[in-house]
Amino acid sequence: MEISNASRAEVLTQALPYIKKYYGTTIVVKYGGNAMTNSELQKAVMSDIVLMSLVGINVVLVHGGGPEISDMLKKTGKESRFVNGMRYTDGETIDIVQMVLAGKVNKDLVKMLCAGGGKAIGLSGLDGGMLFAEKMIMGEDVGFVGEITEVNTGVITDVLDRGYIPVISTVAGGKDGAVYNINADIAAARIAAAMGAKKLILMTDIVGLLKDKDDASTLIPVVNVSDVNSLKTQGIISGGMIPKIDCCVEAVRRGVGRAHIIDGRIPHSILIELFSDEGIGTMFY
Amino acid sequence: MEISNASRAEVLTQALPYIKKYYGTTIVVKYGGNAMTNSELQKAVMSDIVLMSLVGINVVLVHGGGPEISDMLKKTGKESRFVNGMRYTDGETIDIVQMVLAGKVNKDLVKMLCAGGGKAIGLSGLDGGMLFAEKMIMGEDVGFVGEITEVNTGVITDVLDRGYIPVISTVAGGKDGAVYNINADIAAARIAAAMGAKKLILMTDIVGLLKDKDDASTLIPVVNVSDVNSLKTQGIISGGMIPKIDCCVEAVRRGVGRAHIIDGRIPHSILIELFSDEGIGTMFY
Amino acid sequence: MEISNASRAEVLTQALPYIKKYYGTTIVVKYGGNAMTNSELQKAVMSDIVLMSLVGINVVLVHGGGPEISDMLKKTGKESRFVNGMRYTDGETIDIVQMVLAGKVNKDLVKMLCAGGGKAIGLSGLDGGMLFAEKMIMGEDVGFVGEITEVNTGVITDVLDRGYIPVISTVAGGKDGAVYNINADIAAARIAAAMGAKKLILMTDIVGLLKDKDDASTLIPVVNVSDVNSLKTQGIISGGMIPKIDCCVEAVRRGVGRAHIIDGRIPHSILIELFSDEGIGTMFY
Amino acid sequence: MEISNASRAEVLTQALPYIKKYYGTTIVVKYGGNAMTNSELQKAVMSDIVLMSLVGINVVLVHGGGPEISDMLKKTGKESRFVNGMRYTDGETIDIVQMVLAGKVNKDLVKMLCAGGGKAIGLSGLDGGMLFAEKMIMGEDVGFVGEITEVNTGVITDVLDRGYIPVISTVAGGKDGAVYNINADIAAARIAAAMGAKKLILMTDIVGLLKDKDDASTLIPVVNVSDVNSLKTQGIISGGMIPKIDCCVEAVRRGVGRAHIIDGRIPHSILIELFSDEGIGTMFY
Amino acid sequence: MEISNASRAEVLTQALPYIKKYYGTTIVVKYGGNAMTNSELQKAVMSDIVLMSLVGINVVLVHGGGPEISDMLKKTGKESRFVNGMRYTDGETIDIVQMVLAGKVNKDLVKMLCAGGGKAIGLSGLDGGMLFAEKMIMGEDVGFVGEITEVNTGVITDVLDRGYIPVISTVAGGKDGAVYNINADIAAARIAAAMGAKKLILMTDIVGLLKDKDDASTLIPVVNVSDVNSLKTQGIISGGMIPKIDCCVEAVRRGVGRAHIIDGRIPHSILIELFSDEGIGTMFY
Amino acid sequence: MEISNASRAEVLTQALPYIKKYYGTTIVVKYGGNAMTNSELQKAVMSDIVLMSLVGINVVLVHGGGPEISDMLKKTGKESRFVNGMRYTDGETIDIVQMVLAGKVNKDLVKMLCAGGGKAIGLSGLDGGMLFAEKMIMGEDVGFVGEITEVNTGVITDVLDRGYIPVISTVAGGKDGAVYNINADIAAARIAAAMGAKKLILMTDIVGLLKDKDDASTLIPVVNVSDVNSLKTQGIISGGMIPKIDCCVEAVRRGVGRAHIIDGRIPHSILIELFSDEGIGTMFY
Repeated sequence: MEISNASRAEVLTQALPYIKKYYGTTIVVKYGGNAMTNSELQKAVMSDIVLMSLVGINVVLVHGGGPEISDMLKKTGKESRFVNGMRYTDGETIDIVQMVLAGKVNKDLVKMLCAGGGKAIGLSGLDGGMLFAEKMIMGEDVGFVGEITEVNTGVITDVLDRGYIPVISTVAGGKDGAVYNINADIAAARIAAAMGAKKLILMTDIVGLLKDKDDASTLIPVVNVSDVNSLKTQGIISGGMIPKIDCCVEAVRRGVGRAHIIDGRIPHSILIELFSDEGIGTMFY
Repeated sequence: MEISNASRAEVLTQALPYIKKYYGTTIVVKYGGNAMTNSELQKAVMSDIVLMSLVGINVVLVHGGGPEISDMLKKTGKESRFVNGMRYTDGETIDIVQMVLAGKVNKDLVKMLCAGGGKAIGLSGLDGGMLFAEKMIMGEDVGFVGEITEVNTGVITDVLDRGYIPVISTVAGGKDGAVYNINADIAAARIAAAMGAKKLILMTDIVGLLKDKDDASTLIPVVNVSDVNSLKTQGIISGGMIPKIDCCVEAVRRGVGRAHIIDGRIPHSILIELFSDEGIGTMFY
Repeated sequence: MEISNASRAEVLTQALPYIKKYYGTTIVVKYGGNAMTNSELQKAVMSDIVLMSLVGINVVLVHGGGPEISDMLKKTGKESRFVNGMRYTDGETIDIVQMVLAGKVNKDLVKMLCAGGGKAIGLSGLDGGMLFAEKMIMGEDVGFVGEITEVNTGVITDVLDRGYIPVISTVAGGKDGAVYNINADIAAARIAAAMGAKKLILMTDIVGLLKDKDDASTLIPVVNVSDVNSLKTQGIISGGMIPKIDCCVEAVRRGVGRAHIIDGRIPHSILIELFSDEGIGTMFY
Repeated sequence: MEISNASRAEVLTQALPYIKKYYGTTIVVKYGGNAMTNSELQKAVMSDIVLMSLVGINVVLVHGGGPEISDMLKKTGKESRFVNGMRYTDGETIDIVQMVLAGKVNKDLVKMLCAGGGKAIGLSGLDGGMLFAEKMIMGEDVGFVGEITEVNTGVITDVLDRGYIPVISTVAGGKDGAVYNINADIAAARIAAAMGAKKLILMTDIVGLLKDKDDASTLIPVVNVSDVNSLKTQGIISGGMIPKIDCCVEAVRRGVGRAHIIDGRIPHSILIELFSDEGIGTMFY
Repeated sequence: MEISNASRAEVLTQALPYIKKYYGTTIVVKYGGNAMTNSELQKAVMSDIVLMSLVGINVVLVHGGGPEISDMLKKTGKESRFVNGMRYTDGETIDIVQMVLAGKVNKDLVKMLCAGGGKAIGLSGLDGGMLFAEKMIMGEDVGFVGEITEVNTGVITDVLDRGYIPVISTVAGGKDGAVYNINADIAAARIAAAMGAKKLILMTDIVGLLKDKDDASTLIPVVNVSDVNSLKTQGIISGGMIPKIDCCVEAVRRGVGRAHIIDGRIPHSILIELFSDEGIGTMFY
Repeated sequence: MEISNASRAEVLTQALPYIKKYYGTTIVVKYGGNAMTNSELQKAVMSDIVLMSLVGINVVLVHGGGPEISDMLKKTGKESRFVNGMRYTDGETIDIVQMVLAGKVNKDLVKMLCAGGGKAIGLSGLDGGMLFAEKMIMGEDVGFVGEITEVNTGVITDVLDRGYIPVISTVAGGKDGAVYNINADIAAARIAAAMGAKKLILMTDIVGLLKDKDDASTLIPVVNVSDVNSLKTQGIISGGMIPKIDCCVEAVRRGVGRAHIIDGRIPHSILIELFSDEGIGTMFY
């Protein structure tokens, strides 16, 4: 659709109340899924993040990188193995995880943001002692998969104060000297909580929470976190969605204003969420 | 035209390079004409100004108020009299001018900007000793019409630093204790120069500079200020356009990056100018 | 009386303890009455205000402008009408009120303060969203006369911090978009309270509170606000004095250190109040 | 003379233009002579200094202490010996000089200023490495009498910035580890120059520069420093006055706005100088 | 012992954990005894203090000066008289005390610190109104010996903030205008408490608290302040040690982290205390 | 060698003049070679860096990582190939280089510094647009090996200002969107120059510049950069030493105070260089 300059101006004008609403607030975006692997979508997300930063939002970008890790493991002749949805992470694997997340994915995002006019710094949970973790204890050993024990927001705040967009890869240091792989959704939720963020936005590859998972028209746009248990009992929240929604619940319980599951496959889904009344995906409050 | 949320997001994204370009710069807007008398246009301008402020532009709004002055004079039984396009301003008239500009027009604009989510302060050339003037000497006496002798930007900078949009009515103090009426176009040009502004935007009731003044399709989009004299000789710059274009030339000569004559009758013409490559109206550089 | 330089120095020296006492504190002066209409007195007040500012007092000047409003109304052929001491304010009148107060009286004061070496900015209740009001509900409709619902001191503090003397005209915005005329005494009391001022000084055309209203020698110099009701019962506080004293009581009740009713007809009555032990007029605490 | 409150207010008002003139400027006062030994005069000077500080002047107080030094020497059984007007300062003497100036005179002044509502800190040329000196070379050896080689204003500026009145005793350190006695007039002139002071005020026991030294009515109120040599030739500047006036000349030559020789025997002579047009004593420019 | 550069580097490295531990904390050192009269020890202390300052410790140096006072009194023909260990201080004596402490001892220390690369300012309890005292009431009159009634740390904090080492001589002002001599140990304890210091270090001429006062090998390295009374009963704390240990107890009770009695006769005993686990002398907590 | 606490204190004291000398200055350390692969040496370097930071040096750590890159390449089945001493860097290799340097080596160093009490942030040349490069043009194509075209120190200064130790891996962005591998010695030299560093320290696996390369006793401790050409002609500077010494020359030519080649195989060689007069290795000035 060709849009005239007049209409463009009109659209900018209509964004005004939303810009005012988020001015000076902190929003944590968990970036992953298709939005990260598809290069068109990736460009759109980068541009959304820079825009958020320029209109005065303290945006914090937390990213995963599962496919890139699996690729690299394969190149070194190791196979990815998952236990209860968690990557089994032996000593060699955690090295690859750290390398790929903090060295490749993270810095590539930083490069794109800078190229797109943003000021970005790539951080990991190790920088400035941001994230500490201990070994996650489960039925089956999953190796260097960690559970967050401490979130120090000092380094995030310091770089935000100087006008940078912090881009965070979620490996954490252990008091035992080891490095731990942290689930990026959980890390994003904990960082959002520790920052007192107004919003946590999880980019996923689903439309949102659906009453009937095969019918996109049954989207549940708004969920009170106190209704989540009942939705689980009803089987509406199930499968791979459970951990993501648990992150949303945890974030809200720890004081984040709103947590959102949005469809990262739609270009500019973040902007649509932020700059319209109806938003996109499912919001937890 | 109904615009989808996706298209809206696309439009915002396309605004990004322009937002980056103007981030942290100073832009002086001279507000007047139809854009001020038509309430729909007025709303649009107010919203444009707040938007500029929120995306990090140091916007300074300078306004006139001729029709409101004439109205008030009529109410008090005085007739407006013009000499060479300048309002003859006797002692009673200058009181009315000051009152209407600084008390009515200025504060109404401030109120609208605040209601629209901006932080605005109304200033006159008297506040903080911003503008000083002396009596303009012409063939025929025009009374308290002044020529600027001094521009002190301290008060403008102070309020910008604290995040306010300064709204300025152009009466100035004389070292003789009198108050002088200052042409708002000229005042805007001088303030833009003193502030080292990136842009001066004059809102007018014309399309811009036309080769054939009866054919809007002959718009001259860009003029080098060194060509202005020749354009006058050719009669392309003529009549009421001369003083406005002289303001543009003066501003550019005194160091303002660009000066624009834009069509205030088009809604959001400021945004169209700022957020598109082709811009609107005529640009002087 | 001719005063020698030696005596002058002595006088300055004796002012020292008072200067120390008020250094860095906030004092709100309500300016009105004869002190405003008589040009000699006016000059004296302006000089007192600049002096207060230079010796380190955060002085806030709140002004009325009844006579100037009546004059202007008359010029436009409207008559001033008062209901229970309040100006009946229809739509045309509120425009005139705003214009005269914020455009004429306010800016003339600013000009005089600047000419006298002060740094002043003229504000109205509309600037920076300082004052909000709603329609005052009385037996008889008085039009756009407002009751303050909200005082935002941000804009006052911002300009004080930058070294300006804020000069305030008391029109307020309504959430309904209307502008309301606010009694200047009440506005001064509310602003003093919101600022946590050390003193509120109301300049009036009376000597102070007199036991026998016809005998200036019966001045009551100090009144505990808890005694005001009994003084009303005794008829000592009566007539036009009631609303002024109610302002003093309200200010003190809301945390202002001291409230004073002083005689604005005496030159430099503010300085006499501030720089002597016995003060002038009546003090409420 | 009994002065009414009204006249007092009038006097304060008349001080206004002078307060404005000196607001934020640096004035160095050299304190000595009768003004220091007479306790009434001393009180008056202390109060003048505090007043200067409160009305926004960066006042720096440099003091001598000859009589106190002589007294202390006498108590320890040493006699004061002078060579060409300079105290012969052997090793024992320099200890007494340092002790009396920096420990007694200086701290007593600090105590009085604090008691009088000022915030004062006592410094010597040794504190923060303010003054460095080397042995003064003359025909006859005068021991530890020093010539200033370096003035570091950092410590003075640091305490002024924090709102303190620096009180300075003029002993200096030598690169050789010795302590040197510095003439206080000279030190004051050099400090004034290094601070870029607006004024240097030397308090003396004379009326000022007189055409006829026996006739106080022949005071020369203003002297251009380029005329000093000719005044010496004429014998108008002679005797003990020469070094003081040389200090004034040096201060002005090094960039101090004005240097003054005032009569410290007159109470509040500093205020009279600062707060009147005619001033007091002789001004060098 | 010749130490190789490699060993030197090793030693610096081993100091690292201690440097980290004290970085940004406040440590008050009471300087006196042999460490002050022996010039080798004095040099060592000065260098320790500068080192502490450079590695980020807010070090405050409080000094006595008994021997220097006695010397000066003798020079003026007065004899030192002590009552219960306190110097009988008549009017002449307090002058000498002030002079010697604030003028000689204090400034000599400042000079040495500056020469050694530190930035130091000499203060007394009179500067900035730091210490106020009243006459100490005892069985026998001791003259101008004072008990602290008020500690204002503003001036200490101000100079620390600007990077200076405050050097403090312990004379205090009385509300009665007199100057009082304050025991330096007590003053140090009170200043440490008022500053919320991490440590108070008293330099003495003893090894520390000994179980058998004639056997240095019976040193008690650590004492809980609640055990002090019992140690007094047992006679382990006795004689001249009592007031020093009472200072330690008072400091700890008022919130100082640790108080230490160290042996000032050992070169660099402060550094040994700070930069080793076992420390030196006796620590009270 | 057992060192007593007294000797330790002595050593700290002797470090004082050096601490003063470097306080507040910027020192860039290029970290590589044995000091990086040997874990004992690595620990020593980390502790030296933290110590430098705590004693007030703005230390910037630039690191290489050749062996780690070769290891990782081998794991993925690629062989390291070198052209004229430069790693041939195809598209797959540059990914591995970025990953290993910015993700593994860099973050491991950050983790160790934080564990050792430092505050560190890991940066690459991509963060905050620090380093830009273009393809290095040589006789033979070496792929994504870059030559620095732009050094932006903003991000380094920002993190230093907030008290962090910046740890930098030397990959740079190209204006063409590619990532380039940058020689770490060269990058360190250019960063040192852009920061106006006082010192550049290159940690190597040689003793320094030797007259006879087989005899360590022929060390040349100091070289004027103008003598480097003649030393090359004489064959004293030759082989692998040439590029390192060229870096030193370039750094000094661009304004770095001193450049050092030190022997990283000696524990704490950085401290030995900084905290002794004779230093270690070869210094270029």
